Amino acid sequence: MIATLHILGTSSAVPTSNRFPSSQLLDFGGELMLIDCGEGCQMQMRKQGIGFGRIRQIFISHAHGDHFFGLIGLLSTLSVLKVDQPLDIYAPPVVKKVIDYQLKTLGYRLRMKLHWHLIDPDFEGLLLNGNKCMVEAIKLNHSVPVHGFIFREKIVERNIDSEKISAYDLSVSEIVRAKKGKEVIREDGTVLSNEELTLPLHKPLTYAFCTDTTRVPRLDAIHKAHLLYHEATYLEKERELGFKTLHSTAKDAGMAAAENEVDQLLIGHFSARYKKTDKLLQEAREQFPNTTVAHEGMRIRIDSKTNDVRILT
Amino acid sequence: MIATLHILGTSSAVPTSNRFPSSQLLDFGGELMLIDCGEGCQMQMRKQGIGFGRIRQIFISHAHGDHFFGLIGLLSTLSVLKVDQPLDIYAPPVVKKVIDYQLKTLGYRLRMKLHWHLIDPDFEGLLLNGNKCMVEAIKLNHSVPVHGFIFREKIVERNIDSEKISAYDLSVSEIVRAKKGKEVIREDGTVLSNEELTLPLHKPLTYAFCTDTTRVPRLDAIHKAHLLYHEATYLEKERELGFKTLHSTAKDAGMAAAENEVDQLLIGHFSARYKKTDKLLQEAREQFPNTTVAHEGMRIRIDSKTNDVRILT
Repeated sequence: MIATLHILGTSSAVPTSNRFPSSQLLDFGGELMLIDCGEGCQMQMRKQGIGFGRIRQIFISHAHGDHFFGLIGLLSTLSVLKVDQPLDIYAPPVVKKVIDYQLKTLGYRLRMKLHWHLIDPDFEGLLLNGNKCMVEAIKLNHSVPVHGFIFREKIVERNIDSEKISAYDLSVSEIVRAKKGKEVIREDGTVLSNEELTLPLHKPLTYAFCTDTTRVPRLDAIHKAHLLYHEATYLEKERELGFKTLHSTAKDAGMAAAENEVDQLLIGHFSARYKKTDKLLQEAREQFPNTTVAHEGMRIRIDSKTNDVRILT
Repeated sequence: MIATLHILGTSSAVPTSNRFPSSQLLDFGGELMLIDCGEGCQMQMRKQGIGFGRIRQIFISHAHGDHFFGLIGLLSTLSVLKVDQPLDIYAPPVVKKVIDYQLKTLGYRLRMKLHWHLIDPDFEGLLLNGNKCMVEAIKLNHSVPVHGFIFREKIVERNIDSEKISAYDLSVSEIVRAKKGKEVIREDGTVLSNEELTLPLHKPLTYAFCTDTTRVPRLDAIHKAHLLYHEATYLEKERELGFKTLHSTAKDAGMAAAENEVDQLLIGHFSARYKKTDKLLQEAREQFPNTTVAHEGMRIRIDSKTNDVRILT
């Protein structure tokens, strides 16, 4: 499986001259999912040449405006563009209230049907069980209820070891059976175990999105993820502000990545006070060397077959 | 008086890779006024280095999202930035409803006080009588109630002809009287008329903002304005769409400028179908040669003393 993450916005509450509010687009094996939807995310997608009419799911982490004020404009644009495919929106209940009120009060009639999946504050578990991707919600720690989202490849078929096909002269129906993870019983009664016929399962492609929050602890859902996006609003010298506002420092993000033994850490959600990000990167890398700074227009490609996490732009 | 117009957004309903929804900032002798507030206008102001904490008035032409979906984010940012000066917002009643609902439902407490001035659909007349600037609303013609805004310099004092000061040996109190437009009666009973002592009044600086609408007719409020911004959503070949959606073509904008004998026409609010604007400009210029195309980042300076309208960037 190959997934490409497009970074649309990396600012915290206050945008800057080059940072937009939080938003990311995840292309998961060709399926487009939007993660947070800060103001201007539709313009960022236009700029990056993303055909956003293909988005089918939107995930909103929490009901702070810098994470969803772009949603009403995006819905309006999709409607003007005559997109009529249904859209699944996973969000806190208050986000639906605000969107519904605007649509009703302004007399907007959307062409597409919206399927809302309201995330209650205490919910943890599977949000979406798709054909290619499963999405799990985890509770984070902030001033309002916030959920992190874990996007994980759904491995439905095992890969056959091609050498075994000729060695055992496997029939098509035997191959189908083995791909489904079952053992194969030959005509002579011999039993071939599934492990014998199939290649070891690769690690399912896993992307963990965690903002806004204090440092994320060691969690099974995130452990050994290919990529962890963790907010890094402040430098250590502003740690008191982090305590007060329930945000992380870059060091926190690095510690979360180290504890969860992820392959790669991506930091974002930077305070507007930092014009440059080199110190944020340095403080995170002291905890976790394999750290990268998110920026608008960045694309990161994850290939689960090769466990390769590569920055494209 | 000198005013500088900053163009923040020139798209119609659907933004493009380089066009943001409608928004402009008018610096009128140092007083900042925001005209429409499409999504992302705060990011455009950041990009253009505009200190938007100094904005005191916001004018919203109508309740279509591409003209005000940036307002809630801007208010939120101003509050985070601890701006606590009151803000006057002139807008259709439904805009206030939508903003109020979001502030209440999301539990936002703004630092600044909002003074709403609701513009009823049938209202025409003076909206604001400021120290430097008077703002008049005119009704436009669109699918929902829309108002155009005319920003006009308030000339409070006449300029004394300096030659007359020495010729008549005018006292300070006589000069003050003449500046106020009154005649001066000398000690010997001689009467000096105000026209004798003062210079001819210059044309008050006038900027007319007209979008969304069909072609604006000849109107006293716009006649001989220094600058007219008129929407030009379509080319002539899409005229039928203009009829249907109650928008103007570039030719319409040119005709409106010619009929109103303005100094300069600025066209904007372009349909996303036009990647380039050269044909739009050409069709407008056939009606009114002194036409310019608005683009994000453009600045236009108007000097009423010299009647100079100059494009800075």
